[in-house]
Amino acid sequence: MRPGLEGAGAQLDGSPADEEGPKSMDRRRALKSALALSAGAALGARAAKAEDAGSHPGEVLPRQTELGAGVMTPPYGRPSVYESRVVRRDLPRSPYPTRQAAASRTPLQDLHGVITPNGLHYERHHFGVPSLDPDAHRLIVHGDVERPMIFTVADIMRFPAQSRICFLECSGNTQNWGEPKPEFTVQDTHGLLSCCEWTGTPLRTVLDEAGLRASARWMLAEGADAGAMTRSIPIEKVFDDAMLVYAQNGERLRPEQGYPLRLLLPGYEGNTNVKWVRRLKLGREPWQTREETSKYSQLMPDGSVRQFNFVMEAKSVITSPSGGQRMRDRGFHEISGLAWSGRGKIAKVDVSFDGGESWTAAALQEPILPKCLTRFRAPWRWTGQAAVLTSRAVDETGYVQPSRDELLKQRDKRSYYHYNGMQRWRVSEDGEVTNAG
Amino acid sequence: MRPGLEGAGAQLDGSPADEEGPKSMDRRRALKSALALSAGAALGARAAKAEDAGSHPGEVLPRQTELGAGVMTPPYGRPSVYESRVVRRDLPRSPYPTRQAAASRTPLQDLHGVITPNGLHYERHHFGVPSLDPDAHRLIVHGDVERPMIFTVADIMRFPAQSRICFLECSGNTQNWGEPKPEFTVQDTHGLLSCCEWTGTPLRTVLDEAGLRASARWMLAEGADAGAMTRSIPIEKVFDDAMLVYAQNGERLRPEQGYPLRLLLPGYEGNTNVKWVRRLKLGREPWQTREETSKYSQLMPDGSVRQFNFVMEAKSVITSPSGGQRMRDRGFHEISGLAWSGRGKIAKVDVSFDGGESWTAAALQEPILPKCLTRFRAPWRWTGQAAVLTSRAVDETGYVQPSRDELLKQRDKRSYYHYNGMQRWRVSEDGEVTNAG
Repeated sequence: MRPGLEGAGAQLDGSPADEEGPKSMDRRRALKSALALSAGAALGARAAKAEDAGSHPGEVLPRQTELGAGVMTPPYGRPSVYESRVVRRDLPRSPYPTRQAAASRTPLQDLHGVITPNGLHYERHHFGVPSLDPDAHRLIVHGDVERPMIFTVADIMRFPAQSRICFLECSGNTQNWGEPKPEFTVQDTHGLLSCCEWTGTPLRTVLDEAGLRASARWMLAEGADAGAMTRSIPIEKVFDDAMLVYAQNGERLRPEQGYPLRLLLPGYEGNTNVKWVRRLKLGREPWQTREETSKYSQLMPDGSVRQFNFVMEAKSVITSPSGGQRMRDRGFHEISGLAWSGRGKIAKVDVSFDGGESWTAAALQEPILPKCLTRFRAPWRWTGQAAVLTSRAVDETGYVQPSRDELLKQRDKRSYYHYNGMQRWRVSEDGEVTNAG
Repeated sequence: MRPGLEGAGAQLDGSPADEEGPKSMDRRRALKSALALSAGAALGARAAKAEDAGSHPGEVLPRQTELGAGVMTPPYGRPSVYESRVVRRDLPRSPYPTRQAAASRTPLQDLHGVITPNGLHYERHHFGVPSLDPDAHRLIVHGDVERPMIFTVADIMRFPAQSRICFLECSGNTQNWGEPKPEFTVQDTHGLLSCCEWTGTPLRTVLDEAGLRASARWMLAEGADAGAMTRSIPIEKVFDDAMLVYAQNGERLRPEQGYPLRLLLPGYEGNTNVKWVRRLKLGREPWQTREETSKYSQLMPDGSVRQFNFVMEAKSVITSPSGGQRMRDRGFHEISGLAWSGRGKIAKVDVSFDGGESWTAAALQEPILPKCLTRFRAPWRWTGQAAVLTSRAVDETGYVQPSRDELLKQRDKRSYYHYNGMQRWRVSEDGEVTNAG
């Protein structure tokens, strides 16, 4: 028995769990060993009398005996008060005052599965969240079309609909270009990443209604926010899988996600998925807006700048354990994380417990959907020694997520966007987990 | 041009849309016709000047020009103020006072796709929602096991995890046994139905930890609510796909969904998915609790009662248009609805616009997952005549959802549970949609 260790479950009679059971799976054995460490802990003695088959063992443990809260308190529900720390956050020491160009990050360390609840979807906007009356909002389609048109939101909702679950990631997610900040959590490093079921209409349907001309090669999308955020989108994306969406995770878009209408470009950098979309102009050349020249372009090692880096390449991150957490127990732990690719499905995720010296394949949670987060999991037995955990995603095109060193060879260290290097978490001997970049 | 009709989009130059385009799809043609009815509506004149390629057409339409709201207002986000009517509701004239045995229903008429946001998941509880401290909560496993054990929530979360998207439906959903209430919305008739991504651990893993004995044929699951709600579950379900879940749609369970721990039995009637689960007892016979004798049992035509009707059979419902809504325009409409089966995947959904005389196959939204809601859609051209809309689901076992008449032949009209007959919505000539049972 090791003091200070708290394991998974205690026997009612207080005797140690049987370590020599008939189970053969490695994962099961790892788990068994972990459990054996903790059996006979504090709970055992207290519950011993529950062994009497005639008793009602529940009575010795706390339960509520008075009528609980009624339904619809409130009618639109909220999380438990015990989960109040699970919220979106800005970076520690953020350079932005809250009401200016700013971001909030999804608490990936507290999430399970792949869906992000709408209340925790990351935010990134340049001019604040506009308050738009859905009945007054309009979408204008003009430029290289036969019939310039104006649509109400109700008009857009009348077109044939489709739904898809896909991720959104800000291209500025993960600032590990410079010296990694050891105190950063996964919310800090990777929290500009979320995943919802989006519903809307194929953009192609709406453009065809206006009579899209064959000469149109690019589309300008403009938001109804104070700065009229605009991006140029290649027409190939419109033909592929672009959507005009009005719902996320079943309900209408949240204000900070573009209510009442946003452009959805699955797999493209978040910024191009223009929120509060009010204007689509078709043309032959990109418009060279601020957001595709001075921002959202890539500094290359030779000092040149690469424009129109749309696709978010394959990437992964371990979310449990992750920065700021502490390993409380030795023994079995399930490593859990997320992998995604803007080019399609995730084909494989490997994890390493020694900083990339050796690798083992993680299990991928079905269903594996294209341009969607994929949850991976792998068993690990922590012996109490220092370790460096990392993960490496491979997508269905064969693209392999690079290490930080590999990425930095191809890009300038003063880069800002599209960091997709492997993320390393350092585990110290006392169980502290810190960001190793 | 027909007064009072408002269609999908208006041309900027005010001339009618081209009705003789090159498109050949039926759906596209239906849509075109609908649009032609409305082209040249009120918006046309106002926006005409936007045709000038040099102008900035957006300026003629409303947009926000002042800095909007900052991020994290609030840190845990909420829906738009324009969507405040989209909430869970009790039935009109509910027999229950709010703080007693009661239910709230999901607003299916306002939802898109298949995911139910957590704030809108239906509620059904008999003794109110207990307030449980997750650090104090315990799960006890005893009875026909080698090693009776007590687990903390942290213990359960340390086991290998899995996630799955599946529906939950109260077996009392859809009270169309008697005379249908014409004023009922789909929230009233079918709103005890929701669908989330659930994450937890296979129940089998936890029971094996306690040394499940081969003699165990049934499991008693007990909640920590004031009445200690209990159900007997056949061991086969434990071996199949039962889970102990602690997360829904990424975040921890909502209080009204069993925080911090609930039993998840995919495809089984909602009541068996015991919330706030605190005790699992293994045994050889069912315990004949209140919830499986006087309640949640089925009255048969011969006066006998059928117990242990666990599986929710295949069912479907059109959610748009649905009861309480009004068709605002003739022409193209996309019929949209939900189908599900407790036995596996949905194989097919047919829709009818004439109350079941003739049928047409609906499109099913991928991915089609087992024991999960499946969104179906079908184009319809409303000519302004009376119609009766209905849908019929077929699951992968070949089971066909019955009509109301077929169902009533097999069951007593005084039944309460497991109504899965086809749902008919009557559309009147003036576009009013009412429940026809």
